[in-house]
Amino acid sequence: MKVIKSIPEVREAVKCAKKEGKTIALVPTMGYLHEGHISLVRIAGERGNFVVVSIFVNPLQFGPSEDLKEYPRDLNRDIMLLEREGVDLVFAPDVEEMYPEEQLATVEVKGLTEVMCGAYRPGHFTGVATVVMKLFNIVQPDIAVFGQKDAQQAAVIKKMVKDLNLPVEIIVGPVVREEDGLAMSSRNVYLNSEEREAALVLYRALKKGENLLDGGVRSAKTVIESIEKEFEKEPLARLQYVYICHPETLKEIINIEKGAMIAVAAFIGKTRLIDNILWEG
Amino acid sequence: MKVIKSIPEVREAVKCAKKEGKTIALVPTMGYLHEGHISLVRIAGERGNFVVVSIFVNPLQFGPSEDLKEYPRDLNRDIMLLEREGVDLVFAPDVEEMYPEEQLATVEVKGLTEVMCGAYRPGHFTGVATVVMKLFNIVQPDIAVFGQKDAQQAAVIKKMVKDLNLPVEIIVGPVVREEDGLAMSSRNVYLNSEEREAALVLYRALKKGENLLDGGVRSAKTVIESIEKEFEKEPLARLQYVYICHPETLKEIINIEKGAMIAVAAFIGKTRLIDNILWEG
Repeated sequence: MKVIKSIPEVREAVKCAKKEGKTIALVPTMGYLHEGHISLVRIAGERGNFVVVSIFVNPLQFGPSEDLKEYPRDLNRDIMLLEREGVDLVFAPDVEEMYPEEQLATVEVKGLTEVMCGAYRPGHFTGVATVVMKLFNIVQPDIAVFGQKDAQQAAVIKKMVKDLNLPVEIIVGPVVREEDGLAMSSRNVYLNSEEREAALVLYRALKKGENLLDGGVRSAKTVIESIEKEFEKEPLARLQYVYICHPETLKEIINIEKGAMIAVAAFIGKTRLIDNILWEG
Repeated sequence: MKVIKSIPEVREAVKCAKKEGKTIALVPTMGYLHEGHISLVRIAGERGNFVVVSIFVNPLQFGPSEDLKEYPRDLNRDIMLLEREGVDLVFAPDVEEMYPEEQLATVEVKGLTEVMCGAYRPGHFTGVATVVMKLFNIVQPDIAVFGQKDAQQAAVIKKMVKDLNLPVEIIVGPVVREEDGLAMSSRNVYLNSEEREAALVLYRALKKGENLLDGGVRSAKTVIESIEKEFEKEPLARLQYVYICHPETLKEIINIEKGAMIAVAAFIGKTRLIDNILWEG
């Protein structure tokens, strides 16, 4: 497994792989890998035969009051985990390599970025779309794999690819959870033991919503109120939003149908967590 | 020469050419071709060996009060001209092919798009950058050729390519002029014979500025005032801006040095024309 920090070297390595007829599959990450990431790497390995994992904590997607500095990093551990998975190439550039001069060009995805997390994290999805565009142009993958945990990110990237005719297929891997239901996230490391317990409220509330749907409820209002109530019972949690929408357009849904997504964001102490479920009906 | 309207067919044709080891050179145009475009096609032919010319009047770059509807079109004539130049492929999609659904994803290039034409045509360069990004992703050229006449466009595209790591080399071809100095433009067809005569003021004023520089003047203020005076003498002309700047950053220059660009935009009757010169010192 190669670990490369320079853009020209990545281009060269991918060029060689393409010459050998390989299908390039990219998994973009911010590192500090967990089983969620590893599941995406495995999907990449099933769909492609030259797997590239990028590890880059992208400053452009962090707001001024957000956790860029504190964001957990452990490149050596990440490399060890990826080596074990048989990854071909790790691209781990530093900030200077990715942003050598003032970044004036950005990718905006209107409509999909004003709702959900976008409403609370202005500029976040512009930062995400821009760095993913850069990574796509550097690596030029045939396939790229994202996680459903970051549902809005997946929707934004899909729309970017469609609208800008990017020659890459987007695959979205399912949410991976701890045994007790907590969605895997690099930010879970911020939680103390009390908060770790309290964080279960996200999935518990989503499951309560799902149960209502399974029981025949179709009103988004009823489902949302039930989820809000579940959060009220958890003193360490502060619900930011609950939103029911189409998983690709992110358009709000009033009367729920099969395929709808229920998404929540909440602070557990100072840690902001997100989660979602797709209701398959 | 192939004339193709569908995106998948273009991708296929380019893929075949790449397999043969060809270097793909793209010339993006809005059609109604003149000698200026043809000069770019020839540069493309010198630098690449599979020349693609796109012809697409891009609605996204026209303001609501601008000349989208009137913009001159003559696809058959364009095809004849390009056939004569030995072009390999003409990509002439319709609007439905390029924008099959609401275009939510766009490329913004801040800093470079608020000055010059950008100040008077809000959204124009977002439209330009977005369609060029789409064309680059569809054709995947090794090289793309733009004209220096649209100096701000060239600067915006270069910055987009650099900031978003697009794997394409941008070449800018010099302004091509009529014998009397008028810069070639598809919009020159709008001019009646009086206006055609009046339109010479753009190049005449630029040359006057250049003469000042050749004579040792270095103050942008002095050059700008001289250009403004030249316009005042022409009753059919209304100067929109004169701007002296670095040709890549478009940052305004106060004390002129070698390599500076002088750019003007003016209405001649109802027709808006632009022109510029690079002062080589």
